[in-house]
Amino acid sequence: MNSSIFESFEPIFYPRSLAVIGASADMTKFGNIILSAILEIGFEGRVYPVNTEGGDINGLKAYRSLQEIPGEVDFAVMTIPAPAVKNSLEECLRKGVKGVEILTSGFRETGTSEGRRLEEEIVQVARRGIRILGPNCFGIYCPESGLTILPGQNFSRETGPVGFLSQSGGLCADLGQIAKGLGIQFSKMVSYGNGCDVAACDLLEYFFADPKTRIIAGYLEGVEDGPRFLEILKNNKGKKPVILWKAGLTETGSRAVMSHTGSLSGAAEVWKSVLQQAGVVQVGSAEELIDTIYAFLYLPPHAGPKVALMGGGGAIGVAASDSLDRLGLSVPVLSPPILEKLKASFPAVGNSLKNPVDLGNPMIPPSMLRKVMEAAGEDGGIDTLIVIQILFYILYQVRHRLGMDDRPLSQFSFQPGLLKACQEAREKYQKAIILVLPDIVTDGKMIDLEIEWRRERDNYQAAGFPVFKSLDRAARALSHFVRYHQRLQA
Amino acid sequence: MNSSIFESFEPIFYPRSLAVIGASADMTKFGNIILSAILEIGFEGRVYPVNTEGGDINGLKAYRSLQEIPGEVDFAVMTIPAPAVKNSLEECLRKGVKGVEILTSGFRETGTSEGRRLEEEIVQVARRGIRILGPNCFGIYCPESGLTILPGQNFSRETGPVGFLSQSGGLCADLGQIAKGLGIQFSKMVSYGNGCDVAACDLLEYFFADPKTRIIAGYLEGVEDGPRFLEILKNNKGKKPVILWKAGLTETGSRAVMSHTGSLSGAAEVWKSVLQQAGVVQVGSAEELIDTIYAFLYLPPHAGPKVALMGGGGAIGVAASDSLDRLGLSVPVLSPPILEKLKASFPAVGNSLKNPVDLGNPMIPPSMLRKVMEAAGEDGGIDTLIVIQILFYILYQVRHRLGMDDRPLSQFSFQPGLLKACQEAREKYQKAIILVLPDIVTDGKMIDLEIEWRRERDNYQAAGFPVFKSLDRAARALSHFVRYHQRLQA
Repeated sequence: MNSSIFESFEPIFYPRSLAVIGASADMTKFGNIILSAILEIGFEGRVYPVNTEGGDINGLKAYRSLQEIPGEVDFAVMTIPAPAVKNSLEECLRKGVKGVEILTSGFRETGTSEGRRLEEEIVQVARRGIRILGPNCFGIYCPESGLTILPGQNFSRETGPVGFLSQSGGLCADLGQIAKGLGIQFSKMVSYGNGCDVAACDLLEYFFADPKTRIIAGYLEGVEDGPRFLEILKNNKGKKPVILWKAGLTETGSRAVMSHTGSLSGAAEVWKSVLQQAGVVQVGSAEELIDTIYAFLYLPPHAGPKVALMGGGGAIGVAASDSLDRLGLSVPVLSPPILEKLKASFPAVGNSLKNPVDLGNPMIPPSMLRKVMEAAGEDGGIDTLIVIQILFYILYQVRHRLGMDDRPLSQFSFQPGLLKACQEAREKYQKAIILVLPDIVTDGKMIDLEIEWRRERDNYQAAGFPVFKSLDRAARALSHFVRYHQRLQA
Repeated sequence: MNSSIFESFEPIFYPRSLAVIGASADMTKFGNIILSAILEIGFEGRVYPVNTEGGDINGLKAYRSLQEIPGEVDFAVMTIPAPAVKNSLEECLRKGVKGVEILTSGFRETGTSEGRRLEEEIVQVARRGIRILGPNCFGIYCPESGLTILPGQNFSRETGPVGFLSQSGGLCADLGQIAKGLGIQFSKMVSYGNGCDVAACDLLEYFFADPKTRIIAGYLEGVEDGPRFLEILKNNKGKKPVILWKAGLTETGSRAVMSHTGSLSGAAEVWKSVLQQAGVVQVGSAEELIDTIYAFLYLPPHAGPKVALMGGGGAIGVAASDSLDRLGLSVPVLSPPILEKLKASFPAVGNSLKNPVDLGNPMIPPSMLRKVMEAAGEDGGIDTLIVIQILFYILYQVRHRLGMDDRPLSQFSFQPGLLKACQEAREKYQKAIILVLPDIVTDGKMIDLEIEWRRERDNYQAAGFPVFKSLDRAARALSHFVRYHQRLQA
């Protein structure tokens, strides 16, 4: 570990004061959006707007230049046009600013010689003793200090174990919003765009060293120094899980990378083998990235590949079996004594007990599911329990049939009983438990079902159980988690 | 075409009268749920509950036996225990009932010799002149006549072009709910479970012949007669698109099929080649099935593989480029004169114009997107326009920043302008237009964003534009659509 990198990042993630260079009173400008976001999320240090015209911006005095600011400035957010960036960076150097995030675009990613020249100038300044994030990025989100990225004024202020690095700002913006529903919390999230100075290697080193980061994840288009990237990953292999989405691996994707962040994206096979050697969990889409982070957050280390699937509705069992099989997970037939016990509780007709355990009716009372959970819990051949509640919308119909359309859906839900059964089974058997709760209705008139779904999901999550919207997604995330741990032990 | 099959199905899909054999006043029993559903959806013919105890069920006189019913009975829904089914079918024969759906399980799918024997008995009765659906199924939904499946009392009464067959009742139940949000309407939907008499072959023949069915889709676990299945498909190749999900293609999935509907599922490679020969669009999950039906419903026949991607937020462009490339679609660089025109409208900085056309800012005014749509429309190298609106939640933030949290989100939406631009571009250039509107926020406190998303989605759909939640899904569905039409022309 390079301790100087760790120390050089401290004033960037936890600045005592920051300047927004290019702050603006015009609400449509990035210089206003980012300033407002930082103020609204409640950044803990001092904030100095800088604008050559002075005046007042968002209730704060605006300084005409960095030099006018009376106190020290640890960090600067820059939103001025590309050609003005270099001189402003020189000013930052003189003022003793430790790090700058440059949100502006118009550099290498334009593909022009002018853009490349402007970016090269920045790199030269960076070498003289200031760390630079970007250009062409959305910046840093650090819930602990209250820094936030471009459209991130409503991000959570709760700190957590995920360190996230990304060449895409849009993905960071999405992730910060998605995370709020999923109970995912971040130590730091860094959008670094073109990555002319700080990029994947430094950020990985930082996250490996950062005691607040337990899981590292990211979106890459290219890396600045392949051998160093690989060395960092290998040197730290097994210390913390690393989950990466490397995009631009097709010909068309690679062209898009060039005009997005100006990176070189490389060949798919090379990346696959490099990431595998380095113990990285490689994912291929935003959804897969988020699901995998989520699994690493919620699953206990003993979650294994031998799955008992339980619920009602056999096609779901068939589809689930297909997905699990394709992903290298198994759905072993329950052991004979366990099966005998189950047969004593459930009639043969309408139930399929071997595993998947399909109880026919989609509205399965928790007392019945509890019996299946106990059986799977006792079976030494099972590591992980997946409880599937298909036909979630049946709640709606149950309420309607009881003539109680005016009551909240929550009154008709099995969730409290099922949560209790899950908690007791977890306590008793020390096996991983995953819930699959498909949320498929998007009819504008059925919004209260969505409200109820979110409420139930939140309750399971608060108790530590992951909830997936589909079996395919649950299986894919579990499979990444299992293979990561298998490789560690190999 | 077998015209006798077509005719034999008419009294099943459009019965003048039906009996619910096993009707029950107990709200938890299938015999009550299905009766209530049929009454509530507003079945147009006469409904006769049959229960050996007589009395009154759901406000209707219950008959002690089928023979007691005064008038003719075209169709029967059966929910009595498996061992009683055979005798009841004999009664149906005597009464002149044309078709029966048997919801009851406890037959071949139990894997017991008793179950197989009971099912064999049913088959024998069927041969004597009555058509049987099931056993172990959810039945028929026909919006035109008002028949509905087991939990389908709130299904749409609007008829439409999709004929759906499925060995899974749960999938039918899901699909009927999902369809309501997506503007998908059915001619008929048939859950046939074990398929002891009516099964895939007969249903395919019916749907090919049915003038009300324009698109055929289905979920299969196995087929009863492979050569006939293939012959029907080949004889009708190109007449109507056929979209099939064949599940149980892995070892584990195949075991699950056996205990779900007792079918033999077969080898993956065989199925793939058979379906391809027969011109079938093969899909691998419920989501893919629904997305593909949706694409066939909404896309014009000239939707082609050469895509112009437009929106703001480059990572999305990179990921989209990757997905399109992998699926055999292309994102060609716009032609030089078109590019020149675009360059005149947009500054080089912050925009990437070649294709994907990335306008940097995620909040792109419709007037700007309109210019890009016109450019792509004029470009002879482009067939299909995909408009991506990432960071949908930014609406929320815009409203908040304007200090108008109490106003509805719709007031801040670009949707009316964008819809108008889409309509004008469609009129002028006759190219396919697809919208991608990611809906990713699931925070319980942000439900009004979901309400607004559904409203906007509905508006685009009502105007005939498909809306996908992700680029990956849009690309996959478009790719199925394009390949189907390419194969037809080959």
